[in-house]
Amino acid sequence: MLNGPTVAEILASHESGSGSPTHTATRVADAIAARGADGTWITPVPREQLLAAAAEIERRPGARTLPLYGVPFGVKDSIDVAGWPTTLACPDFAYTAAETAPAVQSLLDAGALFVGKTNLDQFATGLNGTRTPYPIPRSVYGGEMICGGSSSGSARAVALGEVPFCVATDTAGSGRVPAALNGILGWKPSRGLISAVGLVPACKSLDCMTLMATTVEDLDRVFDVIAGVDSEDPWSRARGPRFGGGPLRVGLPAVTELEFFGDEVFRAAHLGVRDRLGGFGFECVPATLEPFLAAGELLYQGPWVAERLVEFETFLEARPGSILPVIREILTGGFRFTAVEVFRAQQRLQELRATVARLWVDVDVMVVPTIGTTFTVAQVLADPIATNTMLGHYTHFGNLLDLTAVSVPVGTAADGRPLAVMVFGPALADDTVLAAAARILDEPRPAVAHSDLRLTQKERQ
Amino acid sequence: MLNGPTVAEILASHESGSGSPTHTATRVADAIAARGADGTWITPVPREQLLAAAAEIERRPGARTLPLYGVPFGVKDSIDVAGWPTTLACPDFAYTAAETAPAVQSLLDAGALFVGKTNLDQFATGLNGTRTPYPIPRSVYGGEMICGGSSSGSARAVALGEVPFCVATDTAGSGRVPAALNGILGWKPSRGLISAVGLVPACKSLDCMTLMATTVEDLDRVFDVIAGVDSEDPWSRARGPRFGGGPLRVGLPAVTELEFFGDEVFRAAHLGVRDRLGGFGFECVPATLEPFLAAGELLYQGPWVAERLVEFETFLEARPGSILPVIREILTGGFRFTAVEVFRAQQRLQELRATVARLWVDVDVMVVPTIGTTFTVAQVLADPIATNTMLGHYTHFGNLLDLTAVSVPVGTAADGRPLAVMVFGPALADDTVLAAAARILDEPRPAVAHSDLRLTQKERQ
Repeated sequence: MLNGPTVAEILASHESGSGSPTHTATRVADAIAARGADGTWITPVPREQLLAAAAEIERRPGARTLPLYGVPFGVKDSIDVAGWPTTLACPDFAYTAAETAPAVQSLLDAGALFVGKTNLDQFATGLNGTRTPYPIPRSVYGGEMICGGSSSGSARAVALGEVPFCVATDTAGSGRVPAALNGILGWKPSRGLISAVGLVPACKSLDCMTLMATTVEDLDRVFDVIAGVDSEDPWSRARGPRFGGGPLRVGLPAVTELEFFGDEVFRAAHLGVRDRLGGFGFECVPATLEPFLAAGELLYQGPWVAERLVEFETFLEARPGSILPVIREILTGGFRFTAVEVFRAQQRLQELRATVARLWVDVDVMVVPTIGTTFTVAQVLADPIATNTMLGHYTHFGNLLDLTAVSVPVGTAADGRPLAVMVFGPALADDTVLAAAARILDEPRPAVAHSDLRLTQKERQ
Repeated sequence: MLNGPTVAEILASHESGSGSPTHTATRVADAIAARGADGTWITPVPREQLLAAAAEIERRPGARTLPLYGVPFGVKDSIDVAGWPTTLACPDFAYTAAETAPAVQSLLDAGALFVGKTNLDQFATGLNGTRTPYPIPRSVYGGEMICGGSSSGSARAVALGEVPFCVATDTAGSGRVPAALNGILGWKPSRGLISAVGLVPACKSLDCMTLMATTVEDLDRVFDVIAGVDSEDPWSRARGPRFGGGPLRVGLPAVTELEFFGDEVFRAAHLGVRDRLGGFGFECVPATLEPFLAAGELLYQGPWVAERLVEFETFLEARPGSILPVIREILTGGFRFTAVEVFRAQQRLQELRATVARLWVDVDVMVVPTIGTTFTVAQVLADPIATNTMLGHYTHFGNLLDLTAVSVPVGTAADGRPLAVMVFGPALADDTVLAAAARILDEPRPAVAHSDLRLTQKERQ
């Protein structure tokens, strides 16, 4: 609704000369300054530095052929960019990064323009966007609606059109939930396709880098740059096959399996979207959500919270007063789990993984709501744990089950709130999931990948 | 040294009519009876029942074409066979199995003759074979040498020639160590290739079914029957590709990386075997053992012992006096690990897995000693934990790193003790590992798999 130019549009203007990285940098700096401290950015790059960076990009040899020539982007403030503080929304935890995360470095090398570090729920713990000592961001849809989290600022920066894409993260929904609440795309590729080196871990075995943008074409384009095997990331792996085209079998849970937490407006709106899915070239087939939700409950009620302590235990014990009370409460809860409980839960998870693996024989992707309802900031602050759990109902299971998932904006509900569906599939079915998202958005998607186009472009030189 | 007829030999005699399942059953019953309570069997099938079972097999339609027609075998007493007690070498834990483990059932369906349940270290916890309330078995090589465990009785039954193969298990070396101490083959295929349903778990996420035999041909033949995807086993998966023939790159650790615990006789013997490897058609390349040993230390010193409590916690708390003191001490140690420690260890393991994955680019299989030294029963009883740890030095890491591994007998050391090497490779490289084992044994291995031969045989009918 408020989106600015896309990656593709900015690139086209920079490549043609009708615009330039410096012009774009000026526009971005103006837009951020105009909004002031609205909780989007923790550390925006100051105007002069941003313009200098844009000018440096312009001076590079063959600059106009760089795949992301002068395209501005934001980075969630749990990911290192050399010379800038990494705060995790906890000023006492903050440090100045010595090295840039390889994923971000690949964007910089491709000519992208780093605009700053975006707000998040402290320690990337939360799905609502209120857990920050910085100003609490709101959804761009207004009505005091939460921005969603933990990648709150990233979603907002893209939705506002300040930057056409952001690099964020998603452990239990942190990329998808704020995307849904701000009417943009939030894509969690299969774990390991984007290096997680330089990301301060939340749950290291589950953490997943995430892209936010407003078109599938932009996601494709950025992913072609940022994806790659990294021998320093133990979870790293190569991307899967391209989607070959043709019909897509979309699994839909029974309506009775869907949970809207009493939100009849959202329920009606989602069912309306479901009714239209057949028109997108999908073959809709019934598919149960049960094993997915069971896995999600394992994450929410189970021992994985203890994994956060691998990273934060020392800080929690040394500086408990530096941590927001709700985050402190959550982290401390991790101490009560025993090793036996972890193994028991992991054994159960393995059963659910096996069940889900069989489901993909008959289904290419599943489509569900990204979130079943929304909350205002006041509602979340009044009941922070319960509201947060409801927000993660459809996202908690994503990384436990090693899925790829994208939240796709599908207009608004009758009362104007943003509506989103989540398309998800098995690991390495990333291109299939994006193809389904493009159909839902009625976005043409070339059969030739951008990486191939780029190669052709380079060959032409 | 004491081995009896192989699977292939028994099959040939049954198929030709020169022998019969009933004759074989009689021979087996006589052999077992002659030895008395030597700690090999916990529950041998009584003679009359064994003969009746053999007669039943003979009466089946097309009996002589059954792939394991009348071939006798033993089953480790942690695996269910309907109607027989599963004791886990803990009489107070014992129950009569209602169903037969699918892996065992596939053998029975193929005409194999179930001979009984074999001794083991209690709860499959141990690598030495002394942890049993039943008679403690000794290595068939004598000298009061331990039999090795936990699959002690299985190894002994095969080494004595009572049965040509056994179905056992291997979580941390339980199949390979007793094989090494009794001069037979002990093969731990990749986890999940043989259904683990009906196996009482030790560490469920690591448990692996295992085959013991005296020739690679026999392992091949039994594996073709017993392997298969089982939707009830969450770790189940399909076998990998056949070995295509040609040169094999064998990784050898630096001599300084090898540990013999001061056993100079074993050291000299092993280095002698290494010197001969080039003659087996191997291309020997240096490869570090460091990440493997680091993973093994995680298992030994780390939180995985707590996984045993998922299965045994209730029994341990209800009946502590029913458990051998050393086993009780080990199990109780699992309680002291926290959830945080599990996640920390698993993150470290993931790093080691990534390191090892890169090693397989240059190496097809690794060859190391299966065990660095041997002990007498008295030595183990005097120092049960330390000796057990030494026995697992080369085997602990196998399942943590998702390897396939086979212990291969390579004669005896200068003092007559049995010598073995372990050949191991990455998950699903099972056929490659067996091919390497066959070369070491100088055993011809047909390019055509037995399953293909069997198909041809059936087609001929």
